[in-house]
Amino acid sequence: MIKVGIVGGTGYTGVELLRLLALHPEVKLHAITSRADAGTAVDQMFPSLRGLLDLLFVHPDEAHLETCDLVFFATPNGIAMQQAKALLDAGVKVIDLAADFRLQDIASWEKWYGMTHACPALVANAVYGLPEINREKIRSAQLVANPGCYPTAVQLGFFPLLEAGAIDTGSLIADAKSGVSGAGRKAEIATLFAEAGDNFKAYGVAGHRHLPEIRQGLAGVAGCDVGLTFVPHLTPMIRGIHATLYGRLTRDVDLQALFEKRYLNEPFVDVMPPGSHPETRSVRGSNRCRIAVHRPQGGDTVVVLSVVDNLVKGAAGQAVQNMNIMFGFAENTALNIVPLLP
Amino acid sequence: MIKVGIVGGTGYTGVELLRLLALHPEVKLHAITSRADAGTAVDQMFPSLRGLLDLLFVHPDEAHLETCDLVFFATPNGIAMQQAKALLDAGVKVIDLAADFRLQDIASWEKWYGMTHACPALVANAVYGLPEINREKIRSAQLVANPGCYPTAVQLGFFPLLEAGAIDTGSLIADAKSGVSGAGRKAEIATLFAEAGDNFKAYGVAGHRHLPEIRQGLAGVAGCDVGLTFVPHLTPMIRGIHATLYGRLTRDVDLQALFEKRYLNEPFVDVMPPGSHPETRSVRGSNRCRIAVHRPQGGDTVVVLSVVDNLVKGAAGQAVQNMNIMFGFAENTALNIVPLLP
Amino acid sequence: MIKVGIVGGTGYTGVELLRLLALHPEVKLHAITSRADAGTAVDQMFPSLRGLLDLLFVHPDEAHLETCDLVFFATPNGIAMQQAKALLDAGVKVIDLAADFRLQDIASWEKWYGMTHACPALVANAVYGLPEINREKIRSAQLVANPGCYPTAVQLGFFPLLEAGAIDTGSLIADAKSGVSGAGRKAEIATLFAEAGDNFKAYGVAGHRHLPEIRQGLAGVAGCDVGLTFVPHLTPMIRGIHATLYGRLTRDVDLQALFEKRYLNEPFVDVMPPGSHPETRSVRGSNRCRIAVHRPQGGDTVVVLSVVDNLVKGAAGQAVQNMNIMFGFAENTALNIVPLLP
Amino acid sequence: MIKVGIVGGTGYTGVELLRLLALHPEVKLHAITSRADAGTAVDQMFPSLRGLLDLLFVHPDEAHLETCDLVFFATPNGIAMQQAKALLDAGVKVIDLAADFRLQDIASWEKWYGMTHACPALVANAVYGLPEINREKIRSAQLVANPGCYPTAVQLGFFPLLEAGAIDTGSLIADAKSGVSGAGRKAEIATLFAEAGDNFKAYGVAGHRHLPEIRQGLAGVAGCDVGLTFVPHLTPMIRGIHATLYGRLTRDVDLQALFEKRYLNEPFVDVMPPGSHPETRSVRGSNRCRIAVHRPQGGDTVVVLSVVDNLVKGAAGQAVQNMNIMFGFAENTALNIVPLLP
Repeated sequence: MIKVGIVGGTGYTGVELLRLLALHPEVKLHAITSRADAGTAVDQMFPSLRGLLDLLFVHPDEAHLETCDLVFFATPNGIAMQQAKALLDAGVKVIDLAADFRLQDIASWEKWYGMTHACPALVANAVYGLPEINREKIRSAQLVANPGCYPTAVQLGFFPLLEAGAIDTGSLIADAKSGVSGAGRKAEIATLFAEAGDNFKAYGVAGHRHLPEIRQGLAGVAGCDVGLTFVPHLTPMIRGIHATLYGRLTRDVDLQALFEKRYLNEPFVDVMPPGSHPETRSVRGSNRCRIAVHRPQGGDTVVVLSVVDNLVKGAAGQAVQNMNIMFGFAENTALNIVPLLP
Repeated sequence: MIKVGIVGGTGYTGVELLRLLALHPEVKLHAITSRADAGTAVDQMFPSLRGLLDLLFVHPDEAHLETCDLVFFATPNGIAMQQAKALLDAGVKVIDLAADFRLQDIASWEKWYGMTHACPALVANAVYGLPEINREKIRSAQLVANPGCYPTAVQLGFFPLLEAGAIDTGSLIADAKSGVSGAGRKAEIATLFAEAGDNFKAYGVAGHRHLPEIRQGLAGVAGCDVGLTFVPHLTPMIRGIHATLYGRLTRDVDLQALFEKRYLNEPFVDVMPPGSHPETRSVRGSNRCRIAVHRPQGGDTVVVLSVVDNLVKGAAGQAVQNMNIMFGFAENTALNIVPLLP
Repeated sequence: MIKVGIVGGTGYTGVELLRLLALHPEVKLHAITSRADAGTAVDQMFPSLRGLLDLLFVHPDEAHLETCDLVFFATPNGIAMQQAKALLDAGVKVIDLAADFRLQDIASWEKWYGMTHACPALVANAVYGLPEINREKIRSAQLVANPGCYPTAVQLGFFPLLEAGAIDTGSLIADAKSGVSGAGRKAEIATLFAEAGDNFKAYGVAGHRHLPEIRQGLAGVAGCDVGLTFVPHLTPMIRGIHATLYGRLTRDVDLQALFEKRYLNEPFVDVMPPGSHPETRSVRGSNRCRIAVHRPQGGDTVVVLSVVDNLVKGAAGQAVQNMNIMFGFAENTALNIVPLLP
Repeated sequence: MIKVGIVGGTGYTGVELLRLLALHPEVKLHAITSRADAGTAVDQMFPSLRGLLDLLFVHPDEAHLETCDLVFFATPNGIAMQQAKALLDAGVKVIDLAADFRLQDIASWEKWYGMTHACPALVANAVYGLPEINREKIRSAQLVANPGCYPTAVQLGFFPLLEAGAIDTGSLIADAKSGVSGAGRKAEIATLFAEAGDNFKAYGVAGHRHLPEIRQGLAGVAGCDVGLTFVPHLTPMIRGIHATLYGRLTRDVDLQALFEKRYLNEPFVDVMPPGSHPETRSVRGSNRCRIAVHRPQGGDTVVVLSVVDNLVKGAAGQAVQNMNIMFGFAENTALNIVPLLP
């Protein structure tokens, strides 16, 4: 039983953490902080939790997070980098669901996120929390940078091809589609039901913050810089990411076998049979990533289809998976969830 | 550990039963039957179950359901009444998620369902599976008629008022709204995405099959026939029922206290604080019914808002709750689910 | 050809006015004002208008609205009451799409809208712009209070029954469901796609601002105060209102004939054949109200189903209809629109 | 005024034709045929047309289509090829909204459509009805093959680049997303609201019928065969196609100027300003195609975003545009429509 705190529990990744942790047998929720909503019952803001979670939001100054074994940051970018050091110094492990510790290149981070990094010294020690590539490092990590939603779906789709040296690293394309919850629980016009409903659009084609994160991850396995065109789109559904990935094959390879072998022992990556088209709803509410690989008309273009629930494997679920690894719990504790279909 | 069979596992109530039973610690799934899809892997039809359920659909003739402890019928109306007797005679308990055993008045059933009842003798012994009114009878039942989705939401909302004799029984109104999954997994034009999406309509105003079922249940607690106007509507969401109930108060009563007291010990009925408006998503994927009671402007009209997930408390979840009661398991086994929000 | 101004063109009723007026052969759009977006091209904010409308938003101080023949206020409540007098004094006709001039009872208005009325003297001269009851007064009006969306659907459904004295005026029920655009183009969490999508809820059961407006209208035709329970709901669609109305019949009457006769010559009210269930999408984008009347099981409860597009007959379309009447244009000018289905 | 017939008026392209033609000042609708629904009023099936169109579906044998000036086929693939010859011989012009006359290569057509072509002799004389490339031929055509929805969006996006010889013709990628109405008004499980809602998936990655059609069109302007990877996806909206197109630049070119110049005089193609992201709803209900062109990070990959309403510019609207050209009407007659937003 570990003592867990959550900083910033009023967004979608926060409430999703609560959903998963409420039934985690090894976790005692110590405190959930919120400056704006301190004193409010959590289940008043999220009635879905009525009868399942009996906690008030507490002001950060009164949360005593330094007494926790682990603290999750479910905050906007730029918060964890200000508070993580004190917690780490107190011996608390930290998982940041935002982007503060994801990019090793501080200059790049500062350019894409438009702020000065408050704590660059910690970045080098942070472990990028994608278990499928970093499980051993996560096991002993003090500070985990939980990956972004797009980066999770895209990297898991490209890894087997890059590891096998099977595709041209200079011309990768990731055409990704996200449900609207990916934009967070923020009052904004663009994500209103009447704006985002019955509508489809690309955004950020000139440049999206997840681009350098994906490039860093792909370069890590490719062993060289990669050329990547990343086009995110907003699609009128609540949860889910569908990444459609394109690469140019540089040699002949049994694609299906390659993917199946790569993910054979991964509890949360499912390689579907040849010819499959994974649906986002097939992972709704679950921590799974489902992948199918195609080679249309036998040409030299490989197409990978990769789906995750952006709030689970793309955020809170992966964070819980990382916690399970860090504390030696069975990796699927509290994550053995059947997707909600329909 | 009991041995469970499912007849008709290819519809929405079927796959929802599978979602719930896949993780039930006391259940061993023995067989799922389908005439049309015998031999197909269940997780090929429902990829959400990949890695969680390893079963093939089997032809009814080869299912040996008589060796089960319990058989669920997740079939269209008119099937269970043909097959239940043989199973009951073999000592198997039966829960029918369709309507075959819901109405005690055979003539009424035959009128509303447009068929001759194949097994009227069994009807008198069938227990109507609404635990909040029938828990003790369910405990010893051999045959349970699992309630309809609308009837669950409507009855739970009206019960406290009728039991207290607080409203005029002659002028009840139930204005109910259902998500589209309530129509089932059937190829039909009216429930296509492009027909039911971005659209709202009433249907069956002249008469809906759930009307006599609701009336029977309400009459049971009122002790007399009730006058009920029931208007169902189709709303563009996947899951969820919202019943808005209207009654004329005949005496002064503390409505909030009445409801809270009635459902104090019910694990799956949540009476919300005064002034609340329950949302369907606050019960999405869970077996809970959430209720709020209002008396607008202090007038003599009481308004009850009652929400359930039509596939869970309105179907498969209630069936599992009934099973838990029938076999002496903790009532919330496999039903301790946090609703999926957002 | 008249010169028309719009105050507040950046909300949904504003852009809907633009959609309708862009093709109106008798209208020259003189100015659309916005404080926040002055200088921005209208079609930059609303790309749907590219190639169809070549105007910039202009600051109110530079709009010279006093040179217009007509000014529409598509503003939040409380704006028109401050600016209408100067325009009226300059001989400009005014149509307010907000609520400032809808309630004749100033005290009631101030209670429901939480402000002091800036211009109570004008209220008595304002004409409530529901052509089906007020066409002749609208013809000569200087100031028109355009009805709310719910009030339009509810009043048109109850009028024939009240005019005929066929129902008990003390126990009316209006259970109404609105698409999310009814909440306006405002940055708010509750109407985000991820909040309002796949979800259904009631709101404002204790009291909604449209209640006194509906009551005032119904009392006008009933000749007495009416008892009305009004429960609005939010439904996950973009446009559309569906009002389900309940009344107790006090005498026998041919309901179908009553409704057909009442609306025989109304260009924008369509009484459907007996047994019909109007869908909101059947009026999507059009100025029509479709109505069906039912008497379930021949009981004494009459059920009226009434649908409008909340942004057209419930707002901007009705405003254009009023303009057409005020200026002697054919009433359906620019409103002869085929609904968009699917 | 021309006399127009429609074969097969009960699908989505049929009802969309009716929406557009009902207000066309030069068209008299002579007959709409349906075998299954002969005798039914059109506005009974489509209540959106009540008061706007007073016609019954008529059996094909009684339609006397040979007396028309023009007949539209809004039928499934394989029907027009059986009936067009007789009409053409009678001097009637024909526009087929299905695929029967789209592919010049009969063998390819028979392979992709799985039938023997009933009338290969007519194919050579059929004009592919994409006005932006074939306007002059359409003017004098007797038989027009109206393009598919995906092919319209994809070709209009690639044409300027191929005409300018600016991209590698061997590695084109079209990642396309369609609303569910693209699947037609057919009773099928996969397109039910509860299946296609809140869900996103690719389909037909191995091969889709629109692939050869797009290839044929692109090869026509490129002057050589093209290598194209085409991945269609289903997205939970009713109308709209968004094509995201990728090409490798082979020379430096002012992309924005190239596109603007190419479509300068096209009434229904709108090239948006640099940096834009066209939304599908910005063309909802209208015949417009909106395009934006990007060169992310100044690399050698060009990204084109192209949106159409699949039922208008992708089907019925383009058919009316073709009719207008064929009969010398102003090209935008009955197509001067403001998109419905929100």
